[in-house]
Amino acid sequence: MSRVFASALRTARLGKTVRQVLASTPTDELVQVNGWVRSVRLQKRVAFAMVHDGTCTQSLQVVFPDPRMPHRLTNGASVRLTGRLSSSPGPGQAVELLAESLDILGECDPVTYPIQKQTLSSDYLRDHAHLRLRTDSPGAVLRLRGQAMQALHRYFERHDFTYAHTPILTSSDAEGAGETFRVAPLTSPGSTAGAPAHSYEFFAKPAYLTVSSQLHLEAIASAVARTWTLSPCFRAERSQTNRHLAEFWMLEAEWAFVDSVAGLTQVVEDALKEVLRLNTTERRLLWKDADSDKHALLEEAAGDAQWAHMTYDAAIRALQLREASSGVKFQFPPVWGHALQSEHERWLADELVCGPVFVTDYPAALKPFYMRLNDDGKTVACFDLLVPGIGELVGGSLREERLELLEAALERHGMDKEAYRWYLELRKFGGAPHGGFGLGFERLISWIGGIDNVRECIPMPRWAGRMLL
Amino acid sequence: MSRVFASALRTARLGKTVRQVLASTPTDELVQVNGWVRSVRLQKRVAFAMVHDGTCTQSLQVVFPDPRMPHRLTNGASVRLTGRLSSSPGPGQAVELLAESLDILGECDPVTYPIQKQTLSSDYLRDHAHLRLRTDSPGAVLRLRGQAMQALHRYFERHDFTYAHTPILTSSDAEGAGETFRVAPLTSPGSTAGAPAHSYEFFAKPAYLTVSSQLHLEAIASAVARTWTLSPCFRAERSQTNRHLAEFWMLEAEWAFVDSVAGLTQVVEDALKEVLRLNTTERRLLWKDADSDKHALLEEAAGDAQWAHMTYDAAIRALQLREASSGVKFQFPPVWGHALQSEHERWLADELVCGPVFVTDYPAALKPFYMRLNDDGKTVACFDLLVPGIGELVGGSLREERLELLEAALERHGMDKEAYRWYLELRKFGGAPHGGFGLGFERLISWIGGIDNVRECIPMPRWAGRMLL
Repeated sequence: MSRVFASALRTARLGKTVRQVLASTPTDELVQVNGWVRSVRLQKRVAFAMVHDGTCTQSLQVVFPDPRMPHRLTNGASVRLTGRLSSSPGPGQAVELLAESLDILGECDPVTYPIQKQTLSSDYLRDHAHLRLRTDSPGAVLRLRGQAMQALHRYFERHDFTYAHTPILTSSDAEGAGETFRVAPLTSPGSTAGAPAHSYEFFAKPAYLTVSSQLHLEAIASAVARTWTLSPCFRAERSQTNRHLAEFWMLEAEWAFVDSVAGLTQVVEDALKEVLRLNTTERRLLWKDADSDKHALLEEAAGDAQWAHMTYDAAIRALQLREASSGVKFQFPPVWGHALQSEHERWLADELVCGPVFVTDYPAALKPFYMRLNDDGKTVACFDLLVPGIGELVGGSLREERLELLEAALERHGMDKEAYRWYLELRKFGGAPHGGFGLGFERLISWIGGIDNVRECIPMPRWAGRMLL
Repeated sequence: MSRVFASALRTARLGKTVRQVLASTPTDELVQVNGWVRSVRLQKRVAFAMVHDGTCTQSLQVVFPDPRMPHRLTNGASVRLTGRLSSSPGPGQAVELLAESLDILGECDPVTYPIQKQTLSSDYLRDHAHLRLRTDSPGAVLRLRGQAMQALHRYFERHDFTYAHTPILTSSDAEGAGETFRVAPLTSPGSTAGAPAHSYEFFAKPAYLTVSSQLHLEAIASAVARTWTLSPCFRAERSQTNRHLAEFWMLEAEWAFVDSVAGLTQVVEDALKEVLRLNTTERRLLWKDADSDKHALLEEAAGDAQWAHMTYDAAIRALQLREASSGVKFQFPPVWGHALQSEHERWLADELVCGPVFVTDYPAALKPFYMRLNDDGKTVACFDLLVPGIGELVGGSLREERLELLEAALERHGMDKEAYRWYLELRKFGGAPHGGFGLGFERLISWIGGIDNVRECIPMPRWAGRMLL
């Protein structure tokens, strides 16, 4: 390792990233750049290296006037370079760095380095979770998450939604059914470290990991009118699919003074279009080798045309018609009163609508107690947003703000009214019509990035049997 | 309840918030506003109501030309108003609404409503967590959290830090000592719902709630150079102080190619000054009745002057000198090699420096294994940021990037090298000098909002024995 801490190069300010250097105009000043070597090419009178620092999809081309300079350089090594920027004669980059000095900060043995140059499988990279983000697609997905999040921040800030950190530890396991995680301190007072403390309740009552922030957001929306969060959620889901994680991030928004499902879906559509219209090099990289038909559908969804709406009732009829007309049967027959299965959802979005579709007004019996009953007495004012290739991306509803009806729903669902006293009080004291939705953030990334498996959409995924790092 | 869903007023688009209405210029158009009543004043020929919707500190003054119009209106009721905006002749507001119609959406019984007009104690409000955000200060704190978060997003985005969602469930309980929470699914496969599944490991190994995202962020920084997160963290902390929560939010940043503590503290200072310079009505409201000396200190910290730095060594000598010269003894004598106690930290920030101070280069034995050893062989390249009235707000360090030294540190701390193999590989393959910090987000809100207790700095606080909602 040579000259790691050349004191002349020490600076307290943050230096320039590769992204900043690539976006700058060549001047006569010395520039310092840090990064990791992606490739080295030695020629007789000159040498080249591509240096990447993960701040953008591109690498910086470095030109060494003396081909001996980078002779010990290998892929993966971390380097500090000083030189002058110059317009690049080659294709693919506007500027390149003419190197005057090179410090190898950290070497990388090319024989044992698990991240070799050639394309590596998703499975292999997942097994090397600590190194996976050093490769192109996983790095781009990580940055795309940040970009999508910022687009959503912009949307919600513009519309006066207050961001809220809702609790991760809750006393309610209502929605999770058997798939809730239980939390307990590692030790009870007086016990020796390491001995589990099953009988001792740290919070004086059982604590669970949240499966949804909705009820908390309803309390917040009854105070600040509009609120949203992007919060971790947990389900001890044992099925191994490409759409499920045990730990995932959910965007949830809740707002007061909305009184129609159309009012809810408009916000969903506007917010998601802000994300769909992101035109970043990350998205272009991720879609480079992907299905162009799939990409065309996504572009269409980003357009001005309003997304399709259909009631659950109409969806069931369409599914039944499809069976009758084609003779092809679904595995689960579509029957009014039964849940839509994945195969149904996929057919509706992928084949009938060929785009995002809001399915609204499901039977009350299929949905949680808090959804607002429609005037027909049997359906609720709710929606699921189905998108091609994914299925359900968003679910939302108006919430029952009428105290008597909410109490009746709690009873019908066999729930403990006393545990929901605070929730009932939100209605009792200045209750307002309100509603909201929840969106699986990894599924959104999967959709906009053209990534088949949600395990590739979060930096360090957790699922049944799997928790690396 | 009158005319809740007047269909003529239905609109799919989000309506105007009180904040937006207060910021707009009067025109002849009809305006619709929703909100909650804060006060009603009936006069002979006219009536007034203040309507609040939590999107800003202010309420909108509504003028009723007919004093009978709001005769059933009580504090806390939710309303929908239609009328025309007019320049307000009164002080304190630029515009007021001349009401033409009023719908009471949700009534509020003034006798049983727990949120009465008069000032309520923090304890009382905490006991009414679901309603607390409807009052001025808690509502302002919630919005201030969002504002501070956005200021930090702006800072880190500008400097190419990639936002990362780090895991909440981890397999490591290293830093938490006995204060880690353990996680298990509520049911094991085949067991009946409700029966705890202590022996069954959902992830095939024990799972804990994260106490810090640092190690994960180091892996991410070794790929994208700069990263940050604002993530929930958990400690089964049994002490009841005004600085501790069992669930809190921590801002952590980690970046490569930084090689001095000054490089770390510069980023901390720049990022925090961006927050300290927020000049919002929320901050003014929160500081209205607070100690003006305390506020002056905060203003000073927001200025251009660089914050103070001192080594741990110098801090110990200053503390010893103070004892020697004043004759007043600290409860814990300041001795080189011992941790700084709260009383020491407070004296350094509150009395010696009278402002934020970075204390650097603590003895290695006091700090975790991953901190970078200084050339003296006994201290590490780290810092704590102490601020007046709070004590420790931020802690950070360079991380040991030298493989042999890191391995030695793991051994010295009696830690399992195999469990940290992935962490060692970050150094083995293209390791770079790097460092980072962690900042308690509730303590930051406490500092910038002048709020004594961190329980008032998070919407739904959790601590030993306490978990409402």
